[in-house]
Amino acid sequence: MWNICLVGFGNVAQGLARILADKRERLAAKYGFGFRITSVVTARRGCLANDQGLDPAMLLEAMERDGGFWGCEGARMIDPLEAIKSPHTDILVETTPTSLVRGEPGLTHIRTALKAKKHVVTSNKGPLVRAMSELTALAEGSGVAFRYEGVIMSGTPALNLVRETLAGCDIQHVQGIVNGTTNFILTEMEKGKTYEEALAEAQRIGIAEADPTADVEGWDAAVKACIMAVLFMDATLELEDVERTGITEVSPEMIQTALSRGKRIKLVAEVYREKDRVKALVAPVAVPLTRPLAGIMGAMNAITYTTDHLGDITIVGPGAGRIETGQALLSDLLAIHRAYGRGEHPSRSPF
Amino acid sequence: MWNICLVGFGNVAQGLARILADKRERLAAKYGFGFRITSVVTARRGCLANDQGLDPAMLLEAMERDGGFWGCEGARMIDPLEAIKSPHTDILVETTPTSLVRGEPGLTHIRTALKAKKHVVTSNKGPLVRAMSELTALAEGSGVAFRYEGVIMSGTPALNLVRETLAGCDIQHVQGIVNGTTNFILTEMEKGKTYEEALAEAQRIGIAEADPTADVEGWDAAVKACIMAVLFMDATLELEDVERTGITEVSPEMIQTALSRGKRIKLVAEVYREKDRVKALVAPVAVPLTRPLAGIMGAMNAITYTTDHLGDITIVGPGAGRIETGQALLSDLLAIHRAYGRGEHPSRSPF
Repeated sequence: MWNICLVGFGNVAQGLARILADKRERLAAKYGFGFRITSVVTARRGCLANDQGLDPAMLLEAMERDGGFWGCEGARMIDPLEAIKSPHTDILVETTPTSLVRGEPGLTHIRTALKAKKHVVTSNKGPLVRAMSELTALAEGSGVAFRYEGVIMSGTPALNLVRETLAGCDIQHVQGIVNGTTNFILTEMEKGKTYEEALAEAQRIGIAEADPTADVEGWDAAVKACIMAVLFMDATLELEDVERTGITEVSPEMIQTALSRGKRIKLVAEVYREKDRVKALVAPVAVPLTRPLAGIMGAMNAITYTTDHLGDITIVGPGAGRIETGQALLSDLLAIHRAYGRGEHPSRSPF
Repeated sequence: MWNICLVGFGNVAQGLARILADKRERLAAKYGFGFRITSVVTARRGCLANDQGLDPAMLLEAMERDGGFWGCEGARMIDPLEAIKSPHTDILVETTPTSLVRGEPGLTHIRTALKAKKHVVTSNKGPLVRAMSELTALAEGSGVAFRYEGVIMSGTPALNLVRETLAGCDIQHVQGIVNGTTNFILTEMEKGKTYEEALAEAQRIGIAEADPTADVEGWDAAVKACIMAVLFMDATLELEDVERTGITEVSPEMIQTALSRGKRIKLVAEVYREKDRVKALVAPVAVPLTRPLAGIMGAMNAITYTTDHLGDITIVGPGAGRIETGQALLSDLLAIHRAYGRGEHPSRSPF
């Protein structure tokens, strides 16, 4: 039975709560995974704690009401660091809003958890780009897991694919479409829209923000390139080291010219070795139509890993979404259960 | 330190030996994985055993010579079942030639190993289609691992992707191009060749056999569909339950007609639920060009998994090859090391 502390309860944590509410029995039967949500801490919508476990369906209902958890019995202010260090916490699920500049407040939450020998699962990019090496070393020193599948393509297993299923291969080159908003805009522009029209459409349907800078200037993709460089190529890159060009200068004419030459313009995040250095860059690239990445349209994401033993391996899937990112957190929880769980056969059929 | 017994030393085991010879230090440094090949048993090319470990590079050199291991010091006949049950064996790597009819001799080897509480890694489809449930139950009862990543797409992680990285998702539908030979033939036919010309070309470059029945009649794909149905959907299908149509009746005209309608004909293996039954079938299908599978050309393979939490997840990669299948065996060995290895931090950076 795993005791879970949720810090942050926005879309992503709600996606996880939805799955946990719907699949409690199935997760127990299929994986032997049992859980109790012993605390949930938010900055403005109240906090709850119960050593016997909070019902995830009840937490979701509370969020439908004004005031959130404040309307629930027992609601009170809880210091997130106290909840994290509590003996009733085994795993911290950290999903507070991301700050790429300082990584806070997630960084302090995660650091505190790892020092207190709590496992950590997160989808928060800020702490990773700011302190991945420090946090990885802390987890090693404490003998606990630090997992973050959701930071690249939500539940599409971009990281664990390499970490677990491609173990033994070395990654020589990574090329990915890791931002759905810009891929959607480029797809709409191919159909005849101008950049401005395509952006407006993306904003209308809710996949671009009112201020689209982080997406269209390539910052979001650069964060992911940076994380992949550190993870897959042992690089010591900072976010500022990523060469970055967005899509604001791409014109419908450039897209049509590329197509007439058998290529499609994609905003690509790329990581590779050049002599003794690891390079990470984000830029609009004309990808030959014969490559899997060229066929990825709309808000879909994909990454091609070039490996020594297998050549190119490509994974295609969604890159965002509430249930999708909830699935990322769940897959990390189940990985912790596999590695650290007791009292069950690791050989038990895992499908 | 894992003691490995190799039964069978053809292309696939040689692919593994090549990787183990080249990466011993890297596997130790990156994963803490140490190994000794304590025995290697073949039917016609001799056998060797050494409790201190046989050098994989030496084994590969011996295979270059007439007589194989018979030219090596200490070569002798070894009963494979004795080698498997030896106290100097922790893991059996079973790669004898596949028989889909009876599953032997692999089935007896694997059964013996699991009963003797040895972990088993294999790329041998025969024992799986004949006795998957029995072998899975044996492994559970003995508390050991039974792994077989290589049976679907060689080292492309078709199984472990679902088993590990998509844990928590339920698989609703599987559609895959899991036979490279037929996909190559269909690709050549799209370029203007007749079926006979395309088959001859495939035979010339060595990706089709002199008797191509297993590929072109869909048997190979049917075996894989059967394995996926059992694994992903808890079905109790036999190979004979798979509805199977090959590509021998596909004409260049059918291919061009499909293209003119925005579709491409692919030999597809499909598994899904229909009411209370699990259906598995293999057939040429006109796949819309908007789907990732339609873009898979030549000898490449791909599978699209439709899941409850993530919608469609597609993996693309090679489906055959010596090093590629060696990598499948290696990834299974490393998975066993992760789950059963002692004396190392599971949280250690795994990339």
